[in-house]
Amino acid sequence: MLWYDVELSKFHRLFYPQIPVVVTVEFAGRIGGMPAIWCMPLSFSPPMVGVAVNPEHDTYGKIVGARAFAVNWLDFSFAEKVARLGETSGKEYPDKLAAVGLTTRRGVRTTLPIIQEASAALECVVRDSHRTGTHELIIGEVLAAQASAGFRDYWDFGRYDPLLYAGTVEGPRKSWFFLSAKGERSLIPLATQT
Amino acid sequence: MLWYDVELSKFHRLFYPQIPVVVTVEFAGRIGGMPAIWCMPLSFSPPMVGVAVNPEHDTYGKIVGARAFAVNWLDFSFAEKVARLGETSGKEYPDKLAAVGLTTRRGVRTTLPIIQEASAALECVVRDSHRTGTHELIIGEVLAAQASAGFRDYWDFGRYDPLLYAGTVEGPRKSWFFLSAKGERSLIPLATQT
Repeated sequence: MLWYDVELSKFHRLFYPQIPVVVTVEFAGRIGGMPAIWCMPLSFSPPMVGVAVNPEHDTYGKIVGARAFAVNWLDFSFAEKVARLGETSGKEYPDKLAAVGLTTRRGVRTTLPIIQEASAALECVVRDSHRTGTHELIIGEVLAAQASAGFRDYWDFGRYDPLLYAGTVEGPRKSWFFLSAKGERSLIPLATQT
Repeated sequence: MLWYDVELSKFHRLFYPQIPVVVTVEFAGRIGGMPAIWCMPLSFSPPMVGVAVNPEHDTYGKIVGARAFAVNWLDFSFAEKVARLGETSGKEYPDKLAAVGLTTRRGVRTTLPIIQEASAALECVVRDSHRTGTHELIIGEVLAAQASAGFRDYWDFGRYDPLLYAGTVEGPRKSWFFLSAKGERSLIPLATQT
């Protein structure tokens, strides 16, 4: 096999495709949410999750303020709403999730906003954080986990079609590129073309 | 949508499907490697990666000893070898990768063992680590990234068929369950049924 050098500015793309979870939070009466592909479990017991967030994002400030965050999984049918969430700044809307057409309920162990349309969600309280460079790794303990009927002991991929992010690609129009685990593909043009 | 409680001992399964990268390292003349689904970028610049490892794994000790690790992506056709790597202890073999039929070359910036059959690989030096509960998050700076012809600015999913892990599921035989992004599925029975 021939190997080619990958520019270090693009190393993160080797991790694609990855599920863009939606991190949600409420602080000072404002609801925020952002897609995050840098999110994973960090411990079984206690159940811990890490999410790496760019501190310039409005959602970061809300998480720091609330000392809590929720993790939501939207399936492949919500590709466009996830794209819009990634393009919308929470500074402009008191409820960013509503701004892209998503509805929320309160958590079961916390008052965190949970996306009603999600297939699953975690409620987390912040336990630690570490600056890692451009991002800050926020570590949360999972207080509650809920899922739709698509999950029992494992996901039933006949009922849950995961949304997989594969990059924001160039072309006639710059677009969000999503895959599913069923071989589906979706290109969502950015609302604002630069 | 109806929501059901998910036992906290199973919250990590909500993150499925995830790519099981193979973390490789050499220490004291012995080559180790393990599949890891808890691995993600943590910063663009400097380019940083985090991998959460159970300290009981033999590979953990080798990473701590070498203060370095490589991240390798094997595609869907290597599902069985990745499963075997996950079931094999490095304590038994001087070269665990060879034991499952994989070959290695040296890195381009380090002497780390890189899997020849991989579609891409990163060479990382350890910069930090944090105990998170059952696991330890090891943070590495990426010194080099290489990929096969399947990657240019992004993955070409016509040439690279990612391996996605969806759990070790029960059934007539306990099996590793893998998906691809083309709708393929693969059940690999565990070599040792308990």
